[in-house]
Amino acid sequence: MRIAVLGAAGMLGRRLVERVTGQGALGSARPSHLMLVDAVSPETAEAADIPVETLVADVAERGVAEQIVAGRPELIFDLAAVVSGEAEADPVKGYRVNVHAARLLFEAIHEAGDGYRPRLVFSSSIAVFGPPVPDLIGDDEPPAPATSYGTQKAMVELMLNDYTRRGVIDGVAIRLPTICVRPGAPNRAASGFFSSIIREPLNGKAAILPVSEDVRHWFASPRSGVECLIHAATLPTARLGRRRSLNMPGVSATVANQIEALRRAGGERAVSLIERVPDAAIARMVAGWPRAFDARRARVLGFRAEANFDEIVDVYIVDELGGRVAVEE
Amino acid sequence: MRIAVLGAAGMLGRRLVERVTGQGALGSARPSHLMLVDAVSPETAEAADIPVETLVADVAERGVAEQIVAGRPELIFDLAAVVSGEAEADPVKGYRVNVHAARLLFEAIHEAGDGYRPRLVFSSSIAVFGPPVPDLIGDDEPPAPATSYGTQKAMVELMLNDYTRRGVIDGVAIRLPTICVRPGAPNRAASGFFSSIIREPLNGKAAILPVSEDVRHWFASPRSGVECLIHAATLPTARLGRRRSLNMPGVSATVANQIEALRRAGGERAVSLIERVPDAAIARMVAGWPRAFDARRARVLGFRAEANFDEIVDVYIVDELGGRVAVEE
Repeated sequence: MRIAVLGAAGMLGRRLVERVTGQGALGSARPSHLMLVDAVSPETAEAADIPVETLVADVAERGVAEQIVAGRPELIFDLAAVVSGEAEADPVKGYRVNVHAARLLFEAIHEAGDGYRPRLVFSSSIAVFGPPVPDLIGDDEPPAPATSYGTQKAMVELMLNDYTRRGVIDGVAIRLPTICVRPGAPNRAASGFFSSIIREPLNGKAAILPVSEDVRHWFASPRSGVECLIHAATLPTARLGRRRSLNMPGVSATVANQIEALRRAGGERAVSLIERVPDAAIARMVAGWPRAFDARRARVLGFRAEANFDEIVDVYIVDELGGRVAVEE
Repeated sequence: MRIAVLGAAGMLGRRLVERVTGQGALGSARPSHLMLVDAVSPETAEAADIPVETLVADVAERGVAEQIVAGRPELIFDLAAVVSGEAEADPVKGYRVNVHAARLLFEAIHEAGDGYRPRLVFSSSIAVFGPPVPDLIGDDEPPAPATSYGTQKAMVELMLNDYTRRGVIDGVAIRLPTICVRPGAPNRAASGFFSSIIREPLNGKAAILPVSEDVRHWFASPRSGVECLIHAATLPTARLGRRRSLNMPGVSATVANQIEALRRAGGERAVSLIERVPDAAIARMVAGWPRAFDARRARVLGFRAEANFDEIVDVYIVDELGGRVAVEE
């Protein structure tokens, strides 16, 4: 199976590529060729025993989508995105990268013709839901985005549904929870502090908490995010019918829950590295974010996430810190 | 007030321009300059006593939106669209004209900066609702399009909401009923027969009815459509809050109701010109279309349409036939 990964240099993209090259099987299919696409150079997967092609290009530029489609990948992961903070700061760039590029990709697939109809897995987001959100968001809750990022994801969901209905693609849009604990340097996502308050203390560094401890949000680990992408790539889509956008399972946790989990993993010393610096602007924004999802439909379809926030912290420690935390009492 | 009309050569566009130049006032504002934009040359409004500029151009081409925005129109009507039948037949063209052009327009307004924030009236459509639709569609029914045209309209609604939230535009999207009786030659809209079965007989010509008489649908006259556009251009948007998409009022009528109205206007001879040629494909498509709307929110805001299908036929006879029907018994 030929696979293309758009956004291969991103946090989820890199982990997805490792997972695909490392395990050698996606469900019953074996990857035979991998094309990595990103605006910045993706790390090449050295250990891969399949051909890996790299394309450093902007899919929003004319001709790039055609290059991706030329190899007729049977599976396309579209993870390329400008994140929420940047999409809000620069709407022109946001719409270009988050909507226009997807349109060009779908069109290139349509123009390919020839019965070509790839599975297309699109990483959408719970940001398609905006205030007021119910305490528990059901599977039929309609998108009502309140940010440019959420708007852009909702627009591509609509387009993915339409091109799936037309038989051009076999699309699946998965609305991923906030990925936590994000490794590495903070990106421009407004939700970054949810990761910082765990990651930084576990690495012996201070972190800033801009909201109160009763703030509740919806999380999954990077590992779960990747497994959801893989599952979306391999599940029988006949069971989805026309409803191609799925709320992914996750963990509903308060900041207090996060801090308790941090205490169990890193001790009081780690918790003491969290500095409370209330930020009214962030607090206002976060107040309108989803707090919990039913996600029954996705669970029935076999999507999985962690059971509680302790597991999310454990995944970070195992996958990113080699099982050891830098700060112990 | 400087006004730009995109899609000025279209059926509604031409009538809107006549209305604006003919009456000389939009609410409390007086038009001072009119820019007519269309891919084909719009008829110039001869009787206009204000400057009328014509731009024959494709807004989906780079630079055209900037040309429109250069004159800083305080009011922009965006009626430019590829209709449903063509959008379904040619999705690349449909997405380009119905989505991409709107994106470029919003971006050009954003880039203009300088506190420029025009009222933008977008002609959306009840095609944003797809099957299964409730018998009566409420004001909070979420879009669930089942056609490329409906998808494209829903995408622009999302974008219009976002750019309104950002303070770039003061946007209003009105979901117009099926405009009936459409004058002139049939266009490529799949709903064309709803007009043909009235228009053709009243002009002494045969018309084909492809569905059964119990089919119910949602209608408004071209005159009502234009008045809704004008009202959307002049109403105080503070009352809309963030919900910028409005279901327009209309008439819920069955094909049987249409035929009764035709009989009252044109007699038995007119009715006898309708030839029943069932078309299973059209019947299937129409079965998923909206049948009636509550539209209370729009009515409270002052939007109006006809009270019954007889009035819709009367408007056609008065506005298009000079008050006389060609066929009498």
